[in-house]
Amino acid sequence: MEGGVGGEVDHLAGERATAQFDVEHMKVAWAGSRHAVDVADRMARLVASDPVFRKDNRTMLPRKELFKDTLRKAAHAWKRIVELRLTEEEANLLRLYVDQPGYVDLHWGMFVPAIKGQGTEEQQKKWLPLAYRFQIIGCYAQTELGHGSNVQGLETTATFDPKTDEFVIHSPTLTSSKWWPGGLGKASTHAVVYARLITEGKDYGIHGFIVQLRSLEDHSPLPGVTLGDIGGKFGSGAYNSMDNGVLRFDHVRIPRDQMLMRLSQVTKEGKYVHSDVPKQLLYGTMVFVRQTIVADASKALSRATCIAVRYSAIRKQFGPQTGGPETQVLNYKTQQSRLFPLLASAYAFRFVGEWLKWLYTDVTHKLEAKDFSTLQEAHACTAGLKAVTTSATADGIEECRKLCGGHGYLNSSGLPELFAIYVPACTYEGDNVVLLLQVARFLMKTVSQLASGKQPVGTTAYMGNIQYLMQCKCGVNTAEDWLNPAAIREVFEARALRMAVNCAQNINKAPSQEEGFYELSPDLLEVAVAHIQLIIVTKFTEKLEQDIPGEGVKEQLRILCNVYALYLVHKHLGDFLSTGSITARQGALANEQLGKLYAQVRLNAVALVDAFNYTDHYLGSVLGRYDGNVYPALYEEAWKDPLNDTDVPDGYQEHLRPLLKQQLKLSRL
Amino acid sequence: MEGGVGGEVDHLAGERATAQFDVEHMKVAWAGSRHAVDVADRMARLVASDPVFRKDNRTMLPRKELFKDTLRKAAHAWKRIVELRLTEEEANLLRLYVDQPGYVDLHWGMFVPAIKGQGTEEQQKKWLPLAYRFQIIGCYAQTELGHGSNVQGLETTATFDPKTDEFVIHSPTLTSSKWWPGGLGKASTHAVVYARLITEGKDYGIHGFIVQLRSLEDHSPLPGVTLGDIGGKFGSGAYNSMDNGVLRFDHVRIPRDQMLMRLSQVTKEGKYVHSDVPKQLLYGTMVFVRQTIVADASKALSRATCIAVRYSAIRKQFGPQTGGPETQVLNYKTQQSRLFPLLASAYAFRFVGEWLKWLYTDVTHKLEAKDFSTLQEAHACTAGLKAVTTSATADGIEECRKLCGGHGYLNSSGLPELFAIYVPACTYEGDNVVLLLQVARFLMKTVSQLASGKQPVGTTAYMGNIQYLMQCKCGVNTAEDWLNPAAIREVFEARALRMAVNCAQNINKAPSQEEGFYELSPDLLEVAVAHIQLIIVTKFTEKLEQDIPGEGVKEQLRILCNVYALYLVHKHLGDFLSTGSITARQGALANEQLGKLYAQVRLNAVALVDAFNYTDHYLGSVLGRYDGNVYPALYEEAWKDPLNDTDVPDGYQEHLRPLLKQQLKLSRL
Repeated sequence: MEGGVGGEVDHLAGERATAQFDVEHMKVAWAGSRHAVDVADRMARLVASDPVFRKDNRTMLPRKELFKDTLRKAAHAWKRIVELRLTEEEANLLRLYVDQPGYVDLHWGMFVPAIKGQGTEEQQKKWLPLAYRFQIIGCYAQTELGHGSNVQGLETTATFDPKTDEFVIHSPTLTSSKWWPGGLGKASTHAVVYARLITEGKDYGIHGFIVQLRSLEDHSPLPGVTLGDIGGKFGSGAYNSMDNGVLRFDHVRIPRDQMLMRLSQVTKEGKYVHSDVPKQLLYGTMVFVRQTIVADASKALSRATCIAVRYSAIRKQFGPQTGGPETQVLNYKTQQSRLFPLLASAYAFRFVGEWLKWLYTDVTHKLEAKDFSTLQEAHACTAGLKAVTTSATADGIEECRKLCGGHGYLNSSGLPELFAIYVPACTYEGDNVVLLLQVARFLMKTVSQLASGKQPVGTTAYMGNIQYLMQCKCGVNTAEDWLNPAAIREVFEARALRMAVNCAQNINKAPSQEEGFYELSPDLLEVAVAHIQLIIVTKFTEKLEQDIPGEGVKEQLRILCNVYALYLVHKHLGDFLSTGSITARQGALANEQLGKLYAQVRLNAVALVDAFNYTDHYLGSVLGRYDGNVYPALYEEAWKDPLNDTDVPDGYQEHLRPLLKQQLKLSRL
Repeated sequence: MEGGVGGEVDHLAGERATAQFDVEHMKVAWAGSRHAVDVADRMARLVASDPVFRKDNRTMLPRKELFKDTLRKAAHAWKRIVELRLTEEEANLLRLYVDQPGYVDLHWGMFVPAIKGQGTEEQQKKWLPLAYRFQIIGCYAQTELGHGSNVQGLETTATFDPKTDEFVIHSPTLTSSKWWPGGLGKASTHAVVYARLITEGKDYGIHGFIVQLRSLEDHSPLPGVTLGDIGGKFGSGAYNSMDNGVLRFDHVRIPRDQMLMRLSQVTKEGKYVHSDVPKQLLYGTMVFVRQTIVADASKALSRATCIAVRYSAIRKQFGPQTGGPETQVLNYKTQQSRLFPLLASAYAFRFVGEWLKWLYTDVTHKLEAKDFSTLQEAHACTAGLKAVTTSATADGIEECRKLCGGHGYLNSSGLPELFAIYVPACTYEGDNVVLLLQVARFLMKTVSQLASGKQPVGTTAYMGNIQYLMQCKCGVNTAEDWLNPAAIREVFEARALRMAVNCAQNINKAPSQEEGFYELSPDLLEVAVAHIQLIIVTKFTEKLEQDIPGEGVKEQLRILCNVYALYLVHKHLGDFLSTGSITARQGALANEQLGKLYAQVRLNAVALVDAFNYTDHYLGSVLGRYDGNVYPALYEEAWKDPLNDTDVPDGYQEHLRPLLKQQLKLSRL
């Protein structure tokens, strides 16, 4: 998909000609269906062709203008959605391609789901239509200045006053200030506020309340409400388009029925009562949100690899010692060994994300049938996948930036903003370390229950095969043997299980489980990562067992799957060797095979990133242009910088000329 | 050193009380001498107390204002240097603490040294006084739009015209545009331009020329010179204070004597002649520059760890399961296992940098005596240290940012800017991958010469011990055995040498050396890293053999040295196991010992970062405040954002109100 600045020559045509598979079918495999390709294509072009949605100047806008630009784009997007009567699917894609963090993300992604998930039917009937029509704008105010991961430690209070049938929302300390919620600072009129519910003198812990923050007449903060933006964040442009906010309450009163009462309620008299809705339902939401984060990881990493692969095919450096033209950087094995595993990871994350979508549906059905048997496993699995994919993606984007050499450091490369916008994913919706420790805790429990004969389920089922996996020997004898999916799966299972069992045994040596868990927590992180990597490899392998149409498509995916797995074997060689899952010689063979796979990827690399089907607008990168016409575009882009408005810079008269003319006014000392 | 916003309470006093060593003496060990501490202290306070040097608003300034701010600071710094008659040492430190990239860095760091190193005595006499008094401002114009690492591929031409006794400087293609040089875009009046020297129809390759770019009267670009800034770069503030520039020449003429003629010259008649100055002298400059980059790495990493350690001692999260107050994040083993190795790395890089300074002096003396025997080894060693320390520092700063949780993402944490300013170090002055391949090439050569009995020198001397190192067995039997420096050194030597020999053997199997080198280049990178890590560990160990005064100081350094070494053993376990340098059990013991060392570092962590002696101004971080009074400062900082100028944001009337009031003007479709 071309778009963007008009070049007539395709500088990457040669690269596209060497592809050994049908790119159009690969687009379908990537997007999930022909329909998904088509609708994404339509929405991407709609956005790319609309001048309101331009983003090439985003990193140059001062904060206030950038925020105003977000408001403009959000309103314009909504206008288009209404005018064109877009479906929800189309509207979501349109917002995706607008590609600018803003209050709408939280309104649709957190405020509405919170009311849907935690509000009673009556509450939903009252609030959702207002939200659906944007008569109110909502955000999700949970995190506080002093409290992030530990939700139970939040300090904001909601004290019930039976005299007036109201809750009094209050920020008792500085650290209880709400801090970080997106859309809170300037845009939102309402928030779901999480606070300690206090009634009849007793603290019932954290609950959600719908609180109006701003006047619907003139948008001014309501009495008792202090509201602001928390200030600049990482990067130019990037998340600075969002008004992450600070919020303090000075005894703000709301009617009792604005407590979200689906799971529990406070009566008129101030009695706290649970409803009969099972609390586990909330986990369903968490699985949903984290599933979307994994999908976003594959999107972000694929954008970065698309830029790096295309530019590496254009960029040339050093020649053969025999003379002649310089070599494409993409031909260097060092470049391939850093870049192709990331390309393979993008595909791997895409398919595990697709599977997670299925898992979410499965969990939802089971929850509806009040079957909670797989909930813990599903929760651990999504938490772990969120942690592993977001960390790998953040690191991967920065690696792609470095792989573009100096020019990757320019905003016009798109990579600095992509990185700065992406990295918070490692922290929000569960800090990755905290999440991995949750996974590890679940794995330790699963291991300890093996002895009692309890069969592990879902993604931990392999642990039931403990007798075999603790003593099996990898049968790889040649580099080609590493292409066998069963062999790969077995060594990943052996590695994960042996690490888990080893850790469990070490914990048992500690004076108490808690102490052991605390002391061994760095090792437990590694156990969790090993388990999650096994899941990703497994799901990629399973994908290949499905029917995937298109000439050469499945073969390319098989190559990428092997790259992903063998790259992990090499990267975590210490794990595989120390658990005896493979021998040093087998490790060397894996590495040898990896080198051969890179040579196969090389021929298809540009076509493999074309299959992501990103417009130049969405990529937002001079280096990643579809037509490869990089240098004229870089040159052109430079002159747009405000610093180039004049030949002689502002400040010359005051600060440069006196220096050059030796006319600095010195103080007498 | 306090400074900064006035808090009277020291929230970190408790942490400081547990320190088991004399912080004042550690400051000396870190800085190198009592004198170094004192002069740094004076300069840091001088900068911190001067309102012109404030930098808390830097990330909020639009590009033009930010650049003007750089001009203001540079002029003011120069004024202070002149007024106070500062020594060169003091002036350099003052500029360091001003801490804002700008044209002066290139003027002093590249332009002046280029003339000193490559200019004849006559040229130095003419140009240096002008530069020393800032009557001209110079930069270093080497990199081009299409050529970075491969200097020999530069396209700019300097064609000698004997008729006028001039060189004609020209940019024949778009990709030949000079691109990236700092200070070039707006500030510099002159540049040392690297171009292909062509005389008598022959291309003699790349040479340096002093070229005037702007009028000294009104600063406008001279005829034939196109000059501009290359546009925004990674981060808010950060390197955007610098005018990295683009430069094109349209047949610009300069007198013949502006070719830098120390090594070779062109006669009036157009003859190209070499002088008798050995070319190797240029390597001395490279060793010097890279030595300063290693020193900068320890500075940047120590700043980041200082922020992360202090804030981790303030930040609390989750409580013991038994209830009670929340736990300091610094108490978590997961936090320690990520943070303390970085703290140890900062110290390790500091001492290897100190040693490199000695190496530079040594190389200089030898060059003066025309002894080139150790030059290659010294060059490989500095190139490799540059690569390894800058990569680890860039990753380490970002890790420190993540270790500060969400708040690390705020500009007020100082970490985003620290990262964005730092990362180019991985690319400039030699891309790290290119440098490591140079190191590997040198190591392969050294290995191949072992057979012929040639004794390796300097940091490769251990390779002479090949008989022993190829078959020795690590004697570690208990976790404590890993505290033995000789044992550590031996396993690092065995690992590095065995990896090198293994690679050399694999290269020999290839059809040609070049082909083998190409195919195995990803492995060769790992060989180079193993060798360089050995150097860092060795130099840290050797430092501990020196006299280091102060109660407990040496003991703390010993702990940090062990943390650094054992962390590497754990991180690169695959290397150590696959080369048989240690066994899996010994690997586990190393990890066990590491956990014990973390507990020792924990008590001293805050004092260990206090020893860096950074002012709050220099740190530029609300999270890293000396007094630990983080939350009020974060809160206060937020309100400074321009977005908080008004309660109701710009754009409300145009883009929010119509939405909320359902008054969007829809097009009829």
